[in-house]
Amino acid sequence: MTERGLKIATIGGGSSYTPELIEGFIKRMDVLPVKDLYLVDIPEGQEKLNIVTAFAKRMVEKAGADLRIHATTDREEALKDADFVTTQFRAGLLDSRIRDEHIPLRYHKIGQETTGAGGFANALRSVPVALDIAHDMERLCPNAWLINFANPSGLLTEAVLNHTNIRAIGLCNCPINMINDMSQKFSCSADDLFLDFVGINHLIWAQKVLLHGKDVTAEAIEKICDASSKEIMANIPEVHYSPEFLRSLGMIPVSYLKYYYLQPQMLEECLADSKSKGVRGEVVKSVESELFTLYQDTDLKEKPEQLARRGGARYSDAACSLIDSIYNNKKDIQVVNVMNSGCNLDLPENAVIERNCVIDSNGAHPIQIGHTPLKIRGLLQNVKVYEQLTIQAAIYGDRDAALQALTIHPLVNSAETARLMLNDILSENQAFLPNFA
Amino acid sequence: MTERGLKIATIGGGSSYTPELIEGFIKRMDVLPVKDLYLVDIPEGQEKLNIVTAFAKRMVEKAGADLRIHATTDREEALKDADFVTTQFRAGLLDSRIRDEHIPLRYHKIGQETTGAGGFANALRSVPVALDIAHDMERLCPNAWLINFANPSGLLTEAVLNHTNIRAIGLCNCPINMINDMSQKFSCSADDLFLDFVGINHLIWAQKVLLHGKDVTAEAIEKICDASSKEIMANIPEVHYSPEFLRSLGMIPVSYLKYYYLQPQMLEECLADSKSKGVRGEVVKSVESELFTLYQDTDLKEKPEQLARRGGARYSDAACSLIDSIYNNKKDIQVVNVMNSGCNLDLPENAVIERNCVIDSNGAHPIQIGHTPLKIRGLLQNVKVYEQLTIQAAIYGDRDAALQALTIHPLVNSAETARLMLNDILSENQAFLPNFA
Amino acid sequence: MTERGLKIATIGGGSSYTPELIEGFIKRMDVLPVKDLYLVDIPEGQEKLNIVTAFAKRMVEKAGADLRIHATTDREEALKDADFVTTQFRAGLLDSRIRDEHIPLRYHKIGQETTGAGGFANALRSVPVALDIAHDMERLCPNAWLINFANPSGLLTEAVLNHTNIRAIGLCNCPINMINDMSQKFSCSADDLFLDFVGINHLIWAQKVLLHGKDVTAEAIEKICDASSKEIMANIPEVHYSPEFLRSLGMIPVSYLKYYYLQPQMLEECLADSKSKGVRGEVVKSVESELFTLYQDTDLKEKPEQLARRGGARYSDAACSLIDSIYNNKKDIQVVNVMNSGCNLDLPENAVIERNCVIDSNGAHPIQIGHTPLKIRGLLQNVKVYEQLTIQAAIYGDRDAALQALTIHPLVNSAETARLMLNDILSENQAFLPNFA
Amino acid sequence: MTERGLKIATIGGGSSYTPELIEGFIKRMDVLPVKDLYLVDIPEGQEKLNIVTAFAKRMVEKAGADLRIHATTDREEALKDADFVTTQFRAGLLDSRIRDEHIPLRYHKIGQETTGAGGFANALRSVPVALDIAHDMERLCPNAWLINFANPSGLLTEAVLNHTNIRAIGLCNCPINMINDMSQKFSCSADDLFLDFVGINHLIWAQKVLLHGKDVTAEAIEKICDASSKEIMANIPEVHYSPEFLRSLGMIPVSYLKYYYLQPQMLEECLADSKSKGVRGEVVKSVESELFTLYQDTDLKEKPEQLARRGGARYSDAACSLIDSIYNNKKDIQVVNVMNSGCNLDLPENAVIERNCVIDSNGAHPIQIGHTPLKIRGLLQNVKVYEQLTIQAAIYGDRDAALQALTIHPLVNSAETARLMLNDILSENQAFLPNFA
Repeated sequence: MTERGLKIATIGGGSSYTPELIEGFIKRMDVLPVKDLYLVDIPEGQEKLNIVTAFAKRMVEKAGADLRIHATTDREEALKDADFVTTQFRAGLLDSRIRDEHIPLRYHKIGQETTGAGGFANALRSVPVALDIAHDMERLCPNAWLINFANPSGLLTEAVLNHTNIRAIGLCNCPINMINDMSQKFSCSADDLFLDFVGINHLIWAQKVLLHGKDVTAEAIEKICDASSKEIMANIPEVHYSPEFLRSLGMIPVSYLKYYYLQPQMLEECLADSKSKGVRGEVVKSVESELFTLYQDTDLKEKPEQLARRGGARYSDAACSLIDSIYNNKKDIQVVNVMNSGCNLDLPENAVIERNCVIDSNGAHPIQIGHTPLKIRGLLQNVKVYEQLTIQAAIYGDRDAALQALTIHPLVNSAETARLMLNDILSENQAFLPNFA
Repeated sequence: MTERGLKIATIGGGSSYTPELIEGFIKRMDVLPVKDLYLVDIPEGQEKLNIVTAFAKRMVEKAGADLRIHATTDREEALKDADFVTTQFRAGLLDSRIRDEHIPLRYHKIGQETTGAGGFANALRSVPVALDIAHDMERLCPNAWLINFANPSGLLTEAVLNHTNIRAIGLCNCPINMINDMSQKFSCSADDLFLDFVGINHLIWAQKVLLHGKDVTAEAIEKICDASSKEIMANIPEVHYSPEFLRSLGMIPVSYLKYYYLQPQMLEECLADSKSKGVRGEVVKSVESELFTLYQDTDLKEKPEQLARRGGARYSDAACSLIDSIYNNKKDIQVVNVMNSGCNLDLPENAVIERNCVIDSNGAHPIQIGHTPLKIRGLLQNVKVYEQLTIQAAIYGDRDAALQALTIHPLVNSAETARLMLNDILSENQAFLPNFA
Repeated sequence: MTERGLKIATIGGGSSYTPELIEGFIKRMDVLPVKDLYLVDIPEGQEKLNIVTAFAKRMVEKAGADLRIHATTDREEALKDADFVTTQFRAGLLDSRIRDEHIPLRYHKIGQETTGAGGFANALRSVPVALDIAHDMERLCPNAWLINFANPSGLLTEAVLNHTNIRAIGLCNCPINMINDMSQKFSCSADDLFLDFVGINHLIWAQKVLLHGKDVTAEAIEKICDASSKEIMANIPEVHYSPEFLRSLGMIPVSYLKYYYLQPQMLEECLADSKSKGVRGEVVKSVESELFTLYQDTDLKEKPEQLARRGGARYSDAACSLIDSIYNNKKDIQVVNVMNSGCNLDLPENAVIERNCVIDSNGAHPIQIGHTPLKIRGLLQNVKVYEQLTIQAAIYGDRDAALQALTIHPLVNSAETARLMLNDILSENQAFLPNFA
Repeated sequence: MTERGLKIATIGGGSSYTPELIEGFIKRMDVLPVKDLYLVDIPEGQEKLNIVTAFAKRMVEKAGADLRIHATTDREEALKDADFVTTQFRAGLLDSRIRDEHIPLRYHKIGQETTGAGGFANALRSVPVALDIAHDMERLCPNAWLINFANPSGLLTEAVLNHTNIRAIGLCNCPINMINDMSQKFSCSADDLFLDFVGINHLIWAQKVLLHGKDVTAEAIEKICDASSKEIMANIPEVHYSPEFLRSLGMIPVSYLKYYYLQPQMLEECLADSKSKGVRGEVVKSVESELFTLYQDTDLKEKPEQLARRGGARYSDAACSLIDSIYNNKKDIQVVNVMNSGCNLDLPENAVIERNCVIDSNGAHPIQIGHTPLKIRGLLQNVKVYEQLTIQAAIYGDRDAALQALTIHPLVNSAETARLMLNDILSENQAFLPNFA
């Protein structure tokens, strides 16, 4: 990192999340000397990119920050000598997401952006894009850190770490949201709590909840059992566990686990929603449209409240916090996606896991887990295998791996349904899947 | 093993399978000097035991074998100084099996004797019985071999190996049936073939099919794809894989895997069958009734053909063959259930697996596998975790483990359905589950 | 931990190190509310215990600390409801150490307190004592933390963690001394450095030296190669590595590794020393005698400088620092001895390792290592096996394990020498080895 | 394998061992249709090659075998479409071996052809040769089996398996000699015995000795303790274990383990021998010279008795037996060097081990071991690390790895001695070590 200050490139810079990222850098300007921020997007995103860039510049100006915002569709220019690259792209844009969420519903299966058959389609499109970016980085900024929060975040991070030489860390807002949710339940600050996470992206559990170091897991479970309790995730339907189930689990599941544990109920919700207000992608599309209208208001010079409704709240702040700890060699603990290397003895060494890590200038160092509790081990192992087959399918255009990946996914769980959905996915995503040509 | 010849105790001796066992010993009388065979049963089985014993004596007499058949309900007498103990008991008898198969159907889930919620209920009842037998053996015949073919065979073997000091080997007729089926497809003798098995009981795949050492797996798959192809398992409905799926798998799945891969179709078959002819347990009940009528015919002195329809064909012959190889230190290769100990690197060391083993006087020695192919690894790991949770539930009456075991089983896959089914299972099996009192 | 403040029991309280421990608590009195400190010793140590206790009380009084010092030979009284137990006992006292160091020299092998045949003899005596203490703790203070710095520290910690239910953490001053030594070399503060340790107690390497997060390992090696460089360990003879060797290693070895890598030279030094000034135990004996004369001076109210020459400098401060982080849930990083649980993938899960750990109220959580560099893996694995055999020998009086442990130790490396030394060790330590009676 | 019969290429065909190989093929001519045997050697070996070839032809003629012997220095011609390739080359010829054995003695260390510093030098020369052959095979006969018995056999096999696509199996006569030796001790046939081997080439132990399946290990140990007992290995000095040591070990060590366990005594023998009759290489040189004189006798048409004195007896017969089992898909059990893949859980997956394997047309399939007994684990792990560092050094000319490999080898065990010996080895072998240029 040079004296000139940091250069950061944000792929998918035209995203509605970008203002949160800007806010994050502004908040840290005393400790994190970002000089140049390149917002990169594809030509199809030029309009949004322009809106976001103009808004970002107003935010920076108002804050009096010494931070130059650059908008570009030339990824090479942005990556050249960058110190950090953040990725928040969506391969195929929102229209693809909407397709991803509809196809499974046709077969009476859950359609979701990051998991199940929808997440699978998303992964097939996104893995080649992530690898492309990382290969560009190998040429243009081989020592830069890749901070990925494109979805499916853990899977993409694993693809990059196993198939390129780039140092990548994957991010998700779920852990930080779980901690914040818990801090509300215990009326304490997030710093008073430690959640001991085990799992992979969108499939994690807090094994233990510690309040000032004291184990309050059982208490936390009771608080969740309390039906009045409300979750933070805007994008996940409200369906509740039976207290009996949660107590027998003895851990706190991430919201996404409802898709697994409460599959029939969640499917009904998804189907009902898709009829009333459209699939989540369609809802997001209209939220985004509102946001961009708002962003065009030249009087707006701070991140608007409405962004919180978007679903990905705290994603970008998590990214800034991670960059801060790397740059400043902070040795604090954050929950990120890193190479397993034996941290979780029940997953392969080359799998990416989501885990409490010590963050310093050399990256994220997971705190040893050992063995996974038996109660969650099988589900976790099965979904990781799905991910590894999917990565293989995406990279090599391996249709056999693709069919087997879909078949064993707990949200599909049928060879014949998998076969039919795979046909739909491949044909409807043809434009984005050259590997399967 | 003493000069007096071998003493063998068969727990569940009143079973309709016993004549096959008798035939097995008669066939081997030149190489396997069985002197005393104790058929043990519980008082409720006294009548069947008498019928089978009388029939067995006629078989022995006709063959001119020097083999004494003893019928008893005193297990201690039978176990005392035994050389081999074979187990073919059914905890709770056929009526329990029928219940096991009905409960899941109520919730639109597959009801099956050895897997899913039905197999789970069976395991809860059977694990304590298996451990009881093994504990008796620790006192009465600590050096004897336990040859288990009670179901669920692998799970019970694992419980015994991890919780007692008895040397146990689990048996199943599936591998031998798959080999025989394949030999018909290739019009060759079973000895010409080698199927390289990976998996656990009722969840195995032949990774490779070798004919005279040559890899003919792809050919074997094409033969299975041929719709006219007929499977051997009498107890599994006929539903077929798509060729696309089988080719993408690239391995030969055991028939039971249809319950997993073709779950919706199999469920429909099970539901239809249960309405037309009753669940499998009910069919078996009438088959058994016919068999026992037959066995009472004092002119009958050989195993009748009808036994083959019973579903467990070749089970008992596999047991005799195993005993032969142990007694005679044969060093041949048989497919049995043994402690993993790292043979399959993707399952715990203390898990029981089903695998090609070298059999000698010191037992069954698995041929190293290494890693499981990714395509089948996730399903395999998940079901093994289910098994380990179920063993824990059965031994300690651990209701939490029970609920989590059922929830993650791919044939249940729902926390709420699992909760409801568990309530039914526990209340309807109360008499057989003192650990849950 | 109760409102009354903390109760701490120090086994081997009459040690000359105790004043450092007192100083450590005094320094932290604002953050670590120690109310009662029990100094426990055996009757043979009563005199020293009295001297140390009186001195400790003067230190406390001068500092104006609210800390009560208790001296006792009744271990039960001291352990009852303790919050922390620290162990600094020496089984068999200094005379045994002197014997440990002499016996190997007879056979032209290195005699050392913690490693080789000398450390082996020490372990045989100390393991039963450590287990005794831990078993007492199970009755009297089951939730207390055992902070062990009795030698061999890692081996004793492993024995306690695998054979009792007590939460134990092992300490050594080597890592902290290496960090301090390096901070002198780089003219920086210890906090600016991070040494990434891999290994086990007295057999660790700093894989990497980071200065403000930047990798300066190669520079650090050059600084060590500089012959003028001086190590801190008072108790290890000065013999130097060739620059060629250190560069090829690419890591920083702990001083004790000279016994392994430079065995012939170190042996010559040990032999020469033993003739000129006596073995280290004899030197220590006279240092201790001076210290106790000093401690008796009623004008002395602070830790005297001379203690630093004693060899174990910073041990006690490390203990206070660890207790502080546990009590205050600090989440800082310290290098301690903990259960491996897969942190180092090349050592058994049940082995104790020395590693950078996050310390909080739930103990020490190692940062994942993954695989050990090949260059050090073999030596590390071999010595860990030696340790595990030695623990087995000590607990069960297993003479076969003892002979094999000694034989394979790199500082013995001969079956016949091992046999002869074992005879000497067992006969000369008879009074301390009831398990071998 | 074509109808024309098998083509076999023997690299190092001019070796004095070749007649045993010829005899092996002649003995099996009914079951193993070898049509063409190519004896390949380097130009320096032309004279010996001619002598051996002529003798081989006489042997074949006398036996009336339909086997064509070809002598060539054109390796490509020999490898083209071969079915099996056997390697018995010695890189640098006997003069290099003599150097290998002398250098360590200068430093008062054991000089041995396959282990310690001598074996290390041999490995540095031989690894590139073995890889060269395997790379040629990739072009010329990619499906052929490489049967390696060049030394160090396990290490070379590991290099080939990890760095080429060739299917290789390593052979050694030690296991077969141990079995034969034991059969003499028990006055039984070799087939009555089963030795359960664990370890790596020249560092194996028989964990158990089974006679007709019965554990007679303790008896076998007593037989070895009997001082009158004589070992078979012609090339290893006679030095004896103490009964106390052997009993505490509880296993049967291969003769080469005396270099480790009885290092001081063996060193004395080696030094004495080197003065009286020369190092082993010098002895072999004169034995070979006698053998070649003998081979020139045109009346000699069968393998002469004197060959047995050569040290490598039964090597070639083991090779023929292995080829027979592969060709005929025999599924018998032989002890060979294969990829570990988890068979031994205490060695890396990518390490080659020596183990009882089932041999069929698809190669050698190790019988699962699980964990290594603790008593031998450390030594085994350490020497395997030495091997892996040595392979790395040999392939990449990595001098750092070389120095560390030598340093940690138990027969060197000193950084400074390693440094000095490495200098000698590299300079005296310059002609054979282009990677280190």
